[in-house]
Amino acid sequence: MSEHFADQLIAAIRAKKTPVCIGIDPVYDRLPADIADRQSMNDASDSTSAIDGILEFCRRVIKIVAPLVPAVKINSAFFEQYYWDGVEAYYDLVQEADAQSLIVIGDVKRADIGHSSTAYARAHLGDPTFTNLEDIVAPDAVTVNPYFGFDAVRPFVDICKADPNKGVFALVRTSNETSADVQGLRTENGQTVAERVAMLVNEWAGDDGLVGASGYSCIGAVVAPHNHEETVRLRELMPRSIFLVPGWGAQGRGAEDIAPCFRPDGTGAIINASRSVIYAHEDMKYIERFTSEWDRCIEQACKDFIRDVATVAKL
Amino acid sequence: MSEHFADQLIAAIRAKKTPVCIGIDPVYDRLPADIADRQSMNDASDSTSAIDGILEFCRRVIKIVAPLVPAVKINSAFFEQYYWDGVEAYYDLVQEADAQSLIVIGDVKRADIGHSSTAYARAHLGDPTFTNLEDIVAPDAVTVNPYFGFDAVRPFVDICKADPNKGVFALVRTSNETSADVQGLRTENGQTVAERVAMLVNEWAGDDGLVGASGYSCIGAVVAPHNHEETVRLRELMPRSIFLVPGWGAQGRGAEDIAPCFRPDGTGAIINASRSVIYAHEDMKYIERFTSEWDRCIEQACKDFIRDVATVAKL
Repeated sequence: MSEHFADQLIAAIRAKKTPVCIGIDPVYDRLPADIADRQSMNDASDSTSAIDGILEFCRRVIKIVAPLVPAVKINSAFFEQYYWDGVEAYYDLVQEADAQSLIVIGDVKRADIGHSSTAYARAHLGDPTFTNLEDIVAPDAVTVNPYFGFDAVRPFVDICKADPNKGVFALVRTSNETSADVQGLRTENGQTVAERVAMLVNEWAGDDGLVGASGYSCIGAVVAPHNHEETVRLRELMPRSIFLVPGWGAQGRGAEDIAPCFRPDGTGAIINASRSVIYAHEDMKYIERFTSEWDRCIEQACKDFIRDVATVAKL
Repeated sequence: MSEHFADQLIAAIRAKKTPVCIGIDPVYDRLPADIADRQSMNDASDSTSAIDGILEFCRRVIKIVAPLVPAVKINSAFFEQYYWDGVEAYYDLVQEADAQSLIVIGDVKRADIGHSSTAYARAHLGDPTFTNLEDIVAPDAVTVNPYFGFDAVRPFVDICKADPNKGVFALVRTSNETSADVQGLRTENGQTVAERVAMLVNEWAGDDGLVGASGYSCIGAVVAPHNHEETVRLRELMPRSIFLVPGWGAQGRGAEDIAPCFRPDGTGAIINASRSVIYAHEDMKYIERFTSEWDRCIEQACKDFIRDVATVAKL
């Protein structure tokens, strides 16, 4: 595939008829009993055993959601806590999701000064120089933190220019409670820091060769809806960027909140749900229906998520 | 050791009589010939071979500098680019530096929303729950990115409260050219974003139990000097935070720039040099003196760095 990342993502959304993404944030204590109870995987205090259980769970989640959704987002934090075995498992899952024809977003939130960020970009969007790692599959896109300004983002953008299959989502407005500590600071011209970052992202997104046939750039933005007016402004400030939208479900956001993330033609955003889908086997609504068939709980929660998003995303 | 992190760092600076830190940012192409030429380590295109060479080099650098300096900063980016083998090498080096009685700062620049940041904090400051990894040594302190606000920092702070040996350095003002893109934005009250972040860091630093007998908090700040007035203001805004100061040498900063990072009593900052020390074997000044004895080049560059810093840091 040599297609441009944003075009691929838009095409995948059209093919699956839904602009959603499932976030893989695995927590050992929340694994379904039939995985956690197995002999070789029943010890949360043994990192090798725990990561085996997590890997098995995540592989099955990916298989369950693969026919339904265009993309998954794999959160590096939950793998890094199992040290190098966890990192190997992270790349195993990227490969698994890629093999299932999913678009894979590596949620790594990296940033550093130039030469360090180059190393991060190679690590997380893939480095073709290692002949012994020819089989390794890196994510199609990753999340990056804008606090350093463009220096930290440039090495990722350079990879996108060399390989248009690759993309970046810069954090603009995050979903957490204290996000306004920095992102909500009002600058002297009345805009917030998040709005100023949005303007920077829009500059970066418009650079030569980054905008695909769909009109969208390889440089997208992470935008969590906080209030309608702000989300509308961020959408206006970044017309070429696809929004990766966190905060659905477990974090309390719903259909009305996400509506302004889309452009009027229904494109321009992909909505992520993590815990509300992958831990559906803990939700009485699904347990009552499917009892211990945890895979059916997750499948149904994924379908319900797609249905709820469809009420506002007109494809 | 149950001593408070900031007190430990201040004591280590006094013991070694210098407030410096050596940054371990290894790049395969810059390894000394006698390491890169060895049969098992001579292939940059083989990640296993390359990381072996890097590990050998870094171990020797740590041994060279250990008698001279109180601390090393190990940059995760340069290890992550070798995937899980690189991550294992990173922890190997943390252990090696700890065994040499150095204070170890893990330069990981992580941040995420709460539950993800908890996973990062466990990964990077150490997770005592894994019985099979009892021997693992995590860094004494790590760098964190403030763009999410306190939510991202809190899990690291919680570990510092539970284990006063641990510390955090929050990025306030970074050394890169485009750092002003976000950090330099002027807020409505006339302060820059970096200054507002400094005020937040000072709040976090003053929380119960975080300030040690030295008067310094476990919560420090990364502050790169850009101009005298700004550095003076940041020092005033964060009286309880030890500054981790990047940008020396290869990045162009010298003694005059760093002077305002110290408090009048000469404490309060630790100055980092990475490339100007660990690649001294490429510098004609040292080659002329020591020819191919790369370890002596590095040792001398470290001593020169200490001497230069001593002109402004009165201990």
